[in-house]
Amino acid sequence: MGPVVAVVGGGQLARMMAAPAGALDIHVRALVEADDGAAAQVLPDAPVGAADDEEALTRVTRGAQVLTFEHEHVPYALLAGLEADGVAVRPGSRALRAAQDKIHMRRVLTELGVPCPRWAEVNSVADLAAFGDEIGWPVVLKRPVGGYDGKGVRIVHSAQEGADWAAEGALAEETVDFRSELAALLARRPSGQVQTWTTVQTTQVGGVCSEVISPAPDLEDDGAGEAARIARTIAEGLDVTGVLAVEMFHTRDGRLLVNELAMRPHNSGHVTIDATVTSQFEQHLRAVLDLPLGRTEQLVPWAVMVNVLGSQLADPTKAYPELMERYPEAKVHLYGKSVRPGRKLGHVTVTGDDLPHLRRVARAAADLLEGR
Amino acid sequence: MGPVVAVVGGGQLARMMAAPAGALDIHVRALVEADDGAAAQVLPDAPVGAADDEEALTRVTRGAQVLTFEHEHVPYALLAGLEADGVAVRPGSRALRAAQDKIHMRRVLTELGVPCPRWAEVNSVADLAAFGDEIGWPVVLKRPVGGYDGKGVRIVHSAQEGADWAAEGALAEETVDFRSELAALLARRPSGQVQTWTTVQTTQVGGVCSEVISPAPDLEDDGAGEAARIARTIAEGLDVTGVLAVEMFHTRDGRLLVNELAMRPHNSGHVTIDATVTSQFEQHLRAVLDLPLGRTEQLVPWAVMVNVLGSQLADPTKAYPELMERYPEAKVHLYGKSVRPGRKLGHVTVTGDDLPHLRRVARAAADLLEGR
Repeated sequence: MGPVVAVVGGGQLARMMAAPAGALDIHVRALVEADDGAAAQVLPDAPVGAADDEEALTRVTRGAQVLTFEHEHVPYALLAGLEADGVAVRPGSRALRAAQDKIHMRRVLTELGVPCPRWAEVNSVADLAAFGDEIGWPVVLKRPVGGYDGKGVRIVHSAQEGADWAAEGALAEETVDFRSELAALLARRPSGQVQTWTTVQTTQVGGVCSEVISPAPDLEDDGAGEAARIARTIAEGLDVTGVLAVEMFHTRDGRLLVNELAMRPHNSGHVTIDATVTSQFEQHLRAVLDLPLGRTEQLVPWAVMVNVLGSQLADPTKAYPELMERYPEAKVHLYGKSVRPGRKLGHVTVTGDDLPHLRRVARAAADLLEGR
Repeated sequence: MGPVVAVVGGGQLARMMAAPAGALDIHVRALVEADDGAAAQVLPDAPVGAADDEEALTRVTRGAQVLTFEHEHVPYALLAGLEADGVAVRPGSRALRAAQDKIHMRRVLTELGVPCPRWAEVNSVADLAAFGDEIGWPVVLKRPVGGYDGKGVRIVHSAQEGADWAAEGALAEETVDFRSELAALLARRPSGQVQTWTTVQTTQVGGVCSEVISPAPDLEDDGAGEAARIARTIAEGLDVTGVLAVEMFHTRDGRLLVNELAMRPHNSGHVTIDATVTSQFEQHLRAVLDLPLGRTEQLVPWAVMVNVLGSQLADPTKAYPELMERYPEAKVHLYGKSVRPGRKLGHVTVTGDDLPHLRRVARAAADLLEGR
């Protein structure tokens, strides 16, 4: 009876939309890669199809109020075509392009006056040499499209070392000396309403998010306000709809520099499930349906999330008896994915008022799920 | 990959198990009455079958670690038979009988020394006359089996008025002069661990739960402790596994008298979804799987839940734009059920520290969903 939301992608992000969708009687139909994947296990309506298959995309939007995404890997031309056919695509193809193409992203952020690391588009080893010699080595080299979780990113110490990617066309950026990494999360409706969550601190290991602390512990109120303002500037400047995650560096000299954007629920926002009035998954559904947004305040002083990355256990749920006995306060989220080294299999969130204790518990619980 | 829990029933209680099951990678398979009902809409594995069909019950338990319930209407003999065949039935048939048969319930509670309203089994108009003349009229008359939400309960002012039910065999009880109604909720594992939630106050209108306030506002610490002790006595005395809800009268002279039992997640426990570390639905799954129980403390000073009972709207989700605009703090839960007068279509929970305000907001939000 409720509205129908079509989602591209069948991973954990689509999976975690199922719970708030069930509560709100919103029907989520996910276009999934495989019929036994993370989302298909929990969604009765999960047709199999490729994200770049025009017919599959058209089919999944039939009868849906809106098409949205759990990843950015849908060709721009396809999305623009669906919009031309009258499908409500949210975020829209123009906004999504900034999340798909890192060079385009740097260009529009720079136009919006958003602080970024110094950057250049390089199309040859000479371009890379010029950039690195100007700003200093090493340089961060990124493939413009398709990267995630540290994939498509390298640090190179000379133009020669990055010659292959530079020749294909790449984004070069200064390496930033940061004291912490932050993520500012918000949701925005087509009609313009914006709601931000508390800015969080994220810790990456090997380019993959390992831990999130909410709120960011070393950020003064000024900094949190500045992070939220930057995220809002981006959301409005790019006409983003749905959840927007803005990953930032907090530099040693106190500046905030935007690193990456995601226009969908994001790993840095998983704490919102157990710690805030409205989770990022509920808010994303509300936002793309242009429904008024829910309150976002955190119900507890601190929330800590730790990712479960790979496992020595063939079935991480086998850790439940020990984990639940030792840590009855832990909120465990497993995504139903088969175990592969380093794969994001789930996360654990713990909330309370003793931050060092929460960090230990969340890490220890994740360790048990990882079979350590 | 995770454990499989078979659930009898396809209503809102099975539906609300889906969210925590998804988080914990527990596979819930529900035996549902219809393939488009509340639970079937959100569970990919929801075979259709009757709760009194032995073959359907056997089939739904295949490959499952445990069989549990969202209602009590499964014949005792069938459950005993499944247990004899080695199926883990939780709660077990002996415990469940006390939730199925109100006369049996009164008998075992009295044996356990649990305070109840004065009661008698009546099998004739003469039995009823004798009971009423002894304790005073009017008398509450209950059909021993099959009642719920005020169905199967009458107040009679004379033996003649209750002659029909008395002749069929009924439970007669004194009418209790109460200041409030309470519900004590707990979960218990087969291995004996018990976790209680805060005792709540419930308000019934026409025998149907209308509002729940957590914690119960007019109950001193002593009373809350006593309510929890009574619930624990029942859980241990009857060897209950899973969630147990004990509905009680808080009399004007300060006594607690047990009214009804439910051995499953219960309407009085819906506040736990949005207000406590571990919801009754997650805890029920953990308990019947004999996994260690989660923490149950409430994260907020007050939580208020109001049921949505019937609607003037054909589709209550049409109230979302106004409701979400006015009450961004409201947590809306709709069960995907078609609208019928008085039908439990959903509930709204609001949390915070200003109880009168929360009650107004929860009621006003439910009113909007009811089309008022």
